[in-house]
Amino acid sequence: MRPRFGGGSVDLRPEDIVRLEPDRVVVLDQRRLPAEEVELELRSAEEVAAAIRDLAIRGAPAIGVAAAYGFALAAACGEDLDEAASVLLAARPTAVNLAWAIGEMRRADGDLAERARQIHRDEVERCRRMGEHAAALFEPGSSPLTHCNAGGLATGGYGSALGAVRSAFARGVVVTVFVGETRPLLQGSRLTAWELERAAIPHTVIADSAAASLMGAGEITQVVTGADRIAANGDTANKIGTYSLAVLASHHGIPFYVVAPTSTLDPATATGLEIPIEERDAAEVTSRFPARTPAFDVTPASLITAIVTEEGVHRSPFEESLPRPAVEVAP
Amino acid sequence: MRPRFGGGSVDLRPEDIVRLEPDRVVVLDQRRLPAEEVELELRSAEEVAAAIRDLAIRGAPAIGVAAAYGFALAAACGEDLDEAASVLLAARPTAVNLAWAIGEMRRADGDLAERARQIHRDEVERCRRMGEHAAALFEPGSSPLTHCNAGGLATGGYGSALGAVRSAFARGVVVTVFVGETRPLLQGSRLTAWELERAAIPHTVIADSAAASLMGAGEITQVVTGADRIAANGDTANKIGTYSLAVLASHHGIPFYVVAPTSTLDPATATGLEIPIEERDAAEVTSRFPARTPAFDVTPASLITAIVTEEGVHRSPFEESLPRPAVEVAP
Repeated sequence: MRPRFGGGSVDLRPEDIVRLEPDRVVVLDQRRLPAEEVELELRSAEEVAAAIRDLAIRGAPAIGVAAAYGFALAAACGEDLDEAASVLLAARPTAVNLAWAIGEMRRADGDLAERARQIHRDEVERCRRMGEHAAALFEPGSSPLTHCNAGGLATGGYGSALGAVRSAFARGVVVTVFVGETRPLLQGSRLTAWELERAAIPHTVIADSAAASLMGAGEITQVVTGADRIAANGDTANKIGTYSLAVLASHHGIPFYVVAPTSTLDPATATGLEIPIEERDAAEVTSRFPARTPAFDVTPASLITAIVTEEGVHRSPFEESLPRPAVEVAP
Repeated sequence: MRPRFGGGSVDLRPEDIVRLEPDRVVVLDQRRLPAEEVELELRSAEEVAAAIRDLAIRGAPAIGVAAAYGFALAAACGEDLDEAASVLLAARPTAVNLAWAIGEMRRADGDLAERARQIHRDEVERCRRMGEHAAALFEPGSSPLTHCNAGGLATGGYGSALGAVRSAFARGVVVTVFVGETRPLLQGSRLTAWELERAAIPHTVIADSAAASLMGAGEITQVVTGADRIAANGDTANKIGTYSLAVLASHHGIPFYVVAPTSTLDPATATGLEIPIEERDAAEVTSRFPARTPAFDVTPASLITAIVTEEGVHRSPFEESLPRPAVEVAP
């Protein structure tokens, strides 16, 4: 139960979320937040894969960083590297960043630990650049709403959507942050509120269904979310409820921003119609009655004011404005 | 834990929700649903008031019925009737139906038990008439979404919005019912799903934030909700999240219906701007971080396709089409 990082007013550092030590990978167990701040010590590629599989560490960029550290750990421990790579890749087979990170590690010459740390530093640096680009979009006195957790916990530090909020708050243009609790798994009220508390940024948790009336009352000035996958035309898959917020923002005439690294862009997918939506266990909503639990939804590009990547602010038509991804996924 | 009413396939009757016996009022404890079906035996006006205060019985019409039974019980037990009336009135001071029911009981001559039962029968009969009017609005193959619990539990039997669903299902035009779980107190996944299971009507619980993508996919064909108060111009206060669904329905071009008895109409309130919104305890959303928990929101008349009362289907302009309430609240 003891705070690992020296109390509520000390902001989270990248190495608090995931780091490599000589004989282990250490991750903050996100399943136990915010009640407990507990670190897991992982001593093999298989243990790192299990932590990814079991959602102790989550968020596509953070998973990629953890896998890179897992691969470096396997090398340091003399594990079979083909097997380590295949165990790590199988942990979350759909996460593009994981495959990319493993590919980078396999191609690396020399110091694998240093290469993994570089991948981690690069993710955080991309977030800072996204944050700077996005912060320029915030008017003074902003009270943005964010959804799910697109924070440092998801990226290995700083965050994408939450990085934009951090940068804007540092510029003095954010008054408070509304946090949608994000049913069914409550990533907003568990993880995002915890991150904002550590960053000493004023925040207010709301039920997802309260967003509309707070927009109607003028209390929410824009919506800022991350993305799981962005199609070539700008259609954006993200946590269930994102599309709902985009419709509500459009109805109320407030901006809707997506903040995500170029590694989230998927130019091979023409539109959101082609993005498959994972349906999860009904027990996430109710243990007794029939239920539907889509994990993601797709927000059409027509409802998105701008998409912000580390390369800048991109506006419609997104087919022309979005950059080509800088990184290629290993085969 | 034993089912009181003979198993999941037997539909709920009005007397299962609240009834008068010679020496007690019996209510189904709604706080313990759906896990347990437990009846409370209340032996004085004060015990009935406590059950209303503590939300063992909820929903404006159901509260009015319980209070009428409480008053009849007080008379049967030789309690001071002025004191009984004042204790019952204080239980939920804002519920119009409660004040109306106590006024009716005080004016009654003769058999108070019979007068209370008549009030109960009248509420259920109003619901059946609303249901018939509303069911005519459903096209074959409908899959309506409802929010919160506007069911028999809230009205003393049959239900308002859920009564419309029952009537439409009986006509064979409803395929399945989507139930918004209704954060933060989960009246949808706890109470409405339980009622639909008992009524053997197919249903699917969803997170409130999943409604938008199911509308986008064409799976939700209309929205049907109850109301807490309807202003003269048709603006409608109801459980938080209702306004959100109305905006989403409008965006997707599907009808949004309000089903509520004329006792919900408040011609003295010109527009929704004058309806005060109760803010509840932050702990309903999160026990640790700052939170906002508005209990209700107001849906502007412009987003409402029709309001259905026991007198018929009313459409815009509502100032002209809504009936004057048939009942007057006692001073």
